[in-house]
Amino acid sequence: MRPIESLGEKEVIRILTSRMEIPETPIPFGDDVSAIRIERNLLAVLKTDMLVGRTDVPPGMSLRQAARKAVVMNVSDFASKGVEPVAVLVSLGLPKGLKEEEIREIGEGLNEGAREYGAYVIGGDTNEASDLIISCSLLGFSDKENLVNRFGAKPGDIVAVTGEFGKTAAGLKILIEGLTVPDKIGNPLKEAVLMPKARLKEGVALSKTGGLTSSIDSSDGLAWSLYELLDASNVGFIIDNLPVAKEAVEFSSIYGLDPYELSLYGGEEYELIVTIDPDFWEESKRSVEKSGGSLIKIGVTTKEKKIVLKLDGEIRGIERRGWEHFRI
Amino acid sequence: MRPIESLGEKEVIRILTSRMEIPETPIPFGDDVSAIRIERNLLAVLKTDMLVGRTDVPPGMSLRQAARKAVVMNVSDFASKGVEPVAVLVSLGLPKGLKEEEIREIGEGLNEGAREYGAYVIGGDTNEASDLIISCSLLGFSDKENLVNRFGAKPGDIVAVTGEFGKTAAGLKILIEGLTVPDKIGNPLKEAVLMPKARLKEGVALSKTGGLTSSIDSSDGLAWSLYELLDASNVGFIIDNLPVAKEAVEFSSIYGLDPYELSLYGGEEYELIVTIDPDFWEESKRSVEKSGGSLIKIGVTTKEKKIVLKLDGEIRGIERRGWEHFRI
Repeated sequence: MRPIESLGEKEVIRILTSRMEIPETPIPFGDDVSAIRIERNLLAVLKTDMLVGRTDVPPGMSLRQAARKAVVMNVSDFASKGVEPVAVLVSLGLPKGLKEEEIREIGEGLNEGAREYGAYVIGGDTNEASDLIISCSLLGFSDKENLVNRFGAKPGDIVAVTGEFGKTAAGLKILIEGLTVPDKIGNPLKEAVLMPKARLKEGVALSKTGGLTSSIDSSDGLAWSLYELLDASNVGFIIDNLPVAKEAVEFSSIYGLDPYELSLYGGEEYELIVTIDPDFWEESKRSVEKSGGSLIKIGVTTKEKKIVLKLDGEIRGIERRGWEHFRI
Repeated sequence: MRPIESLGEKEVIRILTSRMEIPETPIPFGDDVSAIRIERNLLAVLKTDMLVGRTDVPPGMSLRQAARKAVVMNVSDFASKGVEPVAVLVSLGLPKGLKEEEIREIGEGLNEGAREYGAYVIGGDTNEASDLIISCSLLGFSDKENLVNRFGAKPGDIVAVTGEFGKTAAGLKILIEGLTVPDKIGNPLKEAVLMPKARLKEGVALSKTGGLTSSIDSSDGLAWSLYELLDASNVGFIIDNLPVAKEAVEFSSIYGLDPYELSLYGGEEYELIVTIDPDFWEESKRSVEKSGGSLIKIGVTTKEKKIVLKLDGEIRGIERRGWEHFRI
C-alpha cells in the first residue's frame, strides 16, 4: 500500500474521489473552482484552499501577510474564471502559544486580502491545531456563459499571460536560503512572495470579451499549468516568448542560475495563463490594459498535444513538473 | 500579552475581528452560519468548520467516521437554521505516512456524510499538514423569512429539544478512558460518538411552521448553548425536564456519575435546542414527528435573564461551561 508522499496531489485526489458520487455540475470536479446552479443562468461559484504554516509560509513572512496570502491564493482561482468574490469564510487552526497581537494580525491580514478584491470576511470558525492552518472559502456569482473553463482552447488560439515570471521563485530562494542580494532587486523579489497579487481585474475583463477559450492561474508553476491546459483542452502549445522579470534575470546572473528555469517551474506566482481566439486578441489586450493590467502574448495553441519551447532561437524541452503537494 | 490558551474561543474571535470591516449581512457575524443575499428574498447560506484529528477524533473512530463527522458537524449548524445543504467543499490537510486505503476511506466518509443529508461533495483541495485536518464548507439556499436566528426567543416561549442527552459524553468517556461496560449500553453510547446524526429533517420541518423563535445546535453542550440563546435573545429559561438517554443513566449508575452532568456539559451532541411560540407548539411537534423525529418540551422562556434548572423537584445551578477550544 503506497504512502501519501509517493503519490503526488493528483493521485491523492483520484484516490479520494474513487468511491464518491460526483454529480454533474457546471464546472467539472477538479477544476480550480466549483459551481452550483442557482437558477437558469446564474451560478454560485465556490473555492476552498488551505494555507499551512509549515509548508506555505516562508521565513520573513509575517502572520498578517500569511493571512492575506491565504485569501489571495483563493482569489487567484476566481480570477482565472473571471468571477469576483463576494464573501470569504475562514476556518482557522491555531497553535498553542499564539499571542493576542498575533491573532489580531491574522484578522487584519484576512480583512486586507478580502477588501483588496472587493469581498468581505463574513464568518468562520476557530480551532486548535499543531500547525497554523488558514482555510479560506470564497463565494461569488457568475452568469453561466461568462464562466471560463480549462477545456476550450483550440489550435490557432493565442496563448497569453498577465505578467512576467520568475520573481517568486527568486524571492523564495532569497528568503529560504538566506541569500544576500542588492536591495534594488532583493526588495521587489521578496515583495513578490510576501505580498502576492491575484489578477482579478484582468480575469474579469477577459471573461467579458467572449474571446477567452481557456484559463488557469500559474500558482503551480507556468510549466505545470500549461500541461493542465493541454490535458483539459487536448491541444498543444508553441511558446516562443517567455517574459522574465528583469529582477529575476539580474538575480539569476548573480547566482549563475537559469532565469527560464525560475520562470517555468517556480510556482506560487499568481499570473493568469489564457488562450484567446485570435479574432478577439486586440480587444482582449485593450480590455485588460483598460483594467490597469497587461496582457503578453507568449505563443500559440497547436493541434499536436505537446509543448514546444522556442526561446532565444533554440528549442528547449519543457518538463511536466512544478509545485505539487506531498511529493518529496 | 496573553497566549491563546488563556483566552477561550469567544475571546479569540473577538480579537480576530477587532480590526476587521464586518459588513451588514442577513445573519450577524458569529452566528452558526453566514448568509449573503442573492436577490430580494433569496439567500446563499454558508458554513465552514474544521475537524482536527488531534482534538476531534477520539480513539476507536475510523478515518471514514472522522471524515463523515467533519461533514455532519457542519450539517448540524445548517439544521439549526432549517437550511438544507446542497454542496460540500472540502479542504484537507493530510499528514505524511497516510496510506492509499486511508485516503480512500476519507473520501468515502466525506461522500457518506454529504449524501446522508442530500448534498454532494463538489470540490476541494489537498495539502500536507502535521495533523489530519478536514475543513468542510457547506452551501445551501434559503428564503429570508424561513431562516431561523438566535435572537427571537420571547418570554412565554416553549423550550424544546429534538432528542435525549448524555450519550456522547458517556461514549467519549468509554472511548477515551477505555472503560468497559456491557455491550447493550456500551454500543449505543459509542455509536453516538462515532456516528453522530444532524437533526436536519427536524430543523427544516420546524423552520417551515413559522412558530420557531430561536434555534441553536447543542454541539458545544446543552448548558453552553442555552446561555448562547440567553445572550442573543436577552431572555432566561426555566428548564424543568431534562431528557437523559437511558443508556447514559445506566452508565452513570455503573460509574457513580451524575447523568445530568453528562447531559448538560457534554458537547459534541448534535440535538437542536429551540424556542417556540406556544400557539405553534402542537403544530411544531406534529410536523417534527411527521419528519420522523421527536420534539421534547424541556421548559419555558422567561423575562429574567438567568437559567433555572428544576430537576426532580430540586432547583440546581447551571454553569456557563461546555466545550470551548483553546481553554485548557
